[in-house]
Amino acid sequence: MTKGRLEAFSDGVLAIIITIMVLELKIPEGYTFEALKPLLHTLVSYVLSFIYIGIYWNNHHHLFQSVKQIKGNVLWHNMHLLFWLSLVPFVTGWIGEQQMKAFPVALYGVVLFMAAIAYTFLVRALVKVEGKDSVLAKSIGNDAKGFISLLFYMTGILLSIFIHPWFGYACYIILP
Amino acid sequence: MTKGRLEAFSDGVLAIIITIMVLELKIPEGYTFEALKPLLHTLVSYVLSFIYIGIYWNNHHHLFQSVKQIKGNVLWHNMHLLFWLSLVPFVTGWIGEQQMKAFPVALYGVVLFMAAIAYTFLVRALVKVEGKDSVLAKSIGNDAKGFISLLFYMTGILLSIFIHPWFGYACYIILP
Amino acid sequence: MTKGRLEAFSDGVLAIIITIMVLELKIPEGYTFEALKPLLHTLVSYVLSFIYIGIYWNNHHHLFQSVKQIKGNVLWHNMHLLFWLSLVPFVTGWIGEQQMKAFPVALYGVVLFMAAIAYTFLVRALVKVEGKDSVLAKSIGNDAKGFISLLFYMTGILLSIFIHPWFGYACYIILP
Amino acid sequence: MTKGRLEAFSDGVLAIIITIMVLELKIPEGYTFEALKPLLHTLVSYVLSFIYIGIYWNNHHHLFQSVKQIKGNVLWHNMHLLFWLSLVPFVTGWIGEQQMKAFPVALYGVVLFMAAIAYTFLVRALVKVEGKDSVLAKSIGNDAKGFISLLFYMTGILLSIFIHPWFGYACYIILP
Repeated sequence: MTKGRLEAFSDGVLAIIITIMVLELKIPEGYTFEALKPLLHTLVSYVLSFIYIGIYWNNHHHLFQSVKQIKGNVLWHNMHLLFWLSLVPFVTGWIGEQQMKAFPVALYGVVLFMAAIAYTFLVRALVKVEGKDSVLAKSIGNDAKGFISLLFYMTGILLSIFIHPWFGYACYIILP
Repeated sequence: MTKGRLEAFSDGVLAIIITIMVLELKIPEGYTFEALKPLLHTLVSYVLSFIYIGIYWNNHHHLFQSVKQIKGNVLWHNMHLLFWLSLVPFVTGWIGEQQMKAFPVALYGVVLFMAAIAYTFLVRALVKVEGKDSVLAKSIGNDAKGFISLLFYMTGILLSIFIHPWFGYACYIILP
Repeated sequence: MTKGRLEAFSDGVLAIIITIMVLELKIPEGYTFEALKPLLHTLVSYVLSFIYIGIYWNNHHHLFQSVKQIKGNVLWHNMHLLFWLSLVPFVTGWIGEQQMKAFPVALYGVVLFMAAIAYTFLVRALVKVEGKDSVLAKSIGNDAKGFISLLFYMTGILLSIFIHPWFGYACYIILP
Repeated sequence: MTKGRLEAFSDGVLAIIITIMVLELKIPEGYTFEALKPLLHTLVSYVLSFIYIGIYWNNHHHLFQSVKQIKGNVLWHNMHLLFWLSLVPFVTGWIGEQQMKAFPVALYGVVLFMAAIAYTFLVRALVKVEGKDSVLAKSIGNDAKGFISLLFYMTGILLSIFIHPWFGYACYIILP
């Protein structure tokens, strides 16, 4: 099975996810600088999510570049990843509108955590197809980077709930 | 006629359909776990529709992989399929917002039923172009799987109207 | 200049136009068949616009299939066509929400008229690049079909304003 | 690294940006010509933004046509450009809804200014990869055109704030 359409479909979904987030930037009612202020949180969370989706697109791009063939289950692992990323605009908008309260910030971490898990599964499914001696398997190496990400998300979730959402959010910002 | 642009256009439309559904997840007004609860039905119906569109993209991918050439009428059968799938976000949102009432759930079944019919027509049009001895015709075989799907949708529609929408919805969930 | 990216970009824009129209199908507040009734006009105008955009995508596909090379001005004629088509969701939604009043129906005709004009310019620009003896120039032949379309739109606009929007709308329906 | 997916992703994002702007054209409540009047500002700002995004797509197309290879940092410069362009629908809608007040018009200039800066960085990153004697480096030449654009945006921003938004907006219109 060739990888062309999987790449095209993923590009499409990621392009839409990254762009519809801007629809959460509701047009303010006034026309002064002050009218823009309540949007500040939404803008910050938009920028961060833009960077995250950008990172995922980048990684996806690099990942599939060293892939030659795919199998049916790769399509579903990819779909699983896109599912969690598709929830990013929703949690991004919620954080912005509620001005970084604990629960939405924790949920943002959960979505990022699940997306990272889905990405790990996708990588493993690809390595299985390509074989352990493939270029792909070597370029991944041990998955320390992925493990640290998961740890950061976990810390972010816990900090948001038990200490303060700002500390949790800081975790997500430091990571990239 | 080459199939490249038909695939690209279908990828685009399916990518948009699968992603705009998330716009129905309206941002809740509170910032607690309770504020998220009314969205539960919407989230469940979002997940199911995501899986259905995912299945259609997968099947579409497999179907066109064994196709070499297309003709003008294939473009229209494909458009017909995309039309019914484009109604999925609307019925998905309706089910979620009205918390699984009988009529919206039945209508969901109707849309899935019509999409399945459109898909069958698309397959037949492709088999006609490729010939009865083609790889495509053989890989389809007898269309038992398609027939069972239609039966399930019908049962789902009838159960929703005459018994209870939950039984109808269960039919759509069991199928994939 | 190769035509690949122009096709991809046009596919993207047309895929989005055809899909965002469904966002005008606002989720009804009730959950009965009656709650769906006010949407009937919107649904009808959605189906018609879906067919029109489908026709444009089809024609665009056929047109560029016989094209080998493009030039800078082709990009702009293509953009001009996409501009008018991008207004289709807006007028479609307006017709549906106002239940086929005279002015919105006339404006729908104006948008279709302008899109048809833009398409004619695009074809001419392509014929100029390809030469008068090219496959493209011969397959277009005399432009009787395009001329009749323009006549139909004109009649539709005039009928909507001076007689009744239903007659105008009928013109747009008969044409495809 | 090949450039195919970067082009496809950028096409997707630009196609979505150019099309979702039409969602800011809110359907008017009446059905007369008068009901359309309040939308005039939005329509004008939509047309201008459509032209700007069109220009960027055109330039992006020409730019990458003479590029053979890309590197990792090009992906990020491209993402940076897309980020600023993704804010165009937001400022376009704000200008339209507030009927060309000073601050929104100035902000529109800021977004265009930042996009132009991002584009310049993208070009430089590409020239670095291709080398100073490449086709690309020669076709860019000295960057007088880019410099004049930046000057125009600056003037537009200052005129909007200190004199009148109409003068500022005129700057953005003259430029293309």
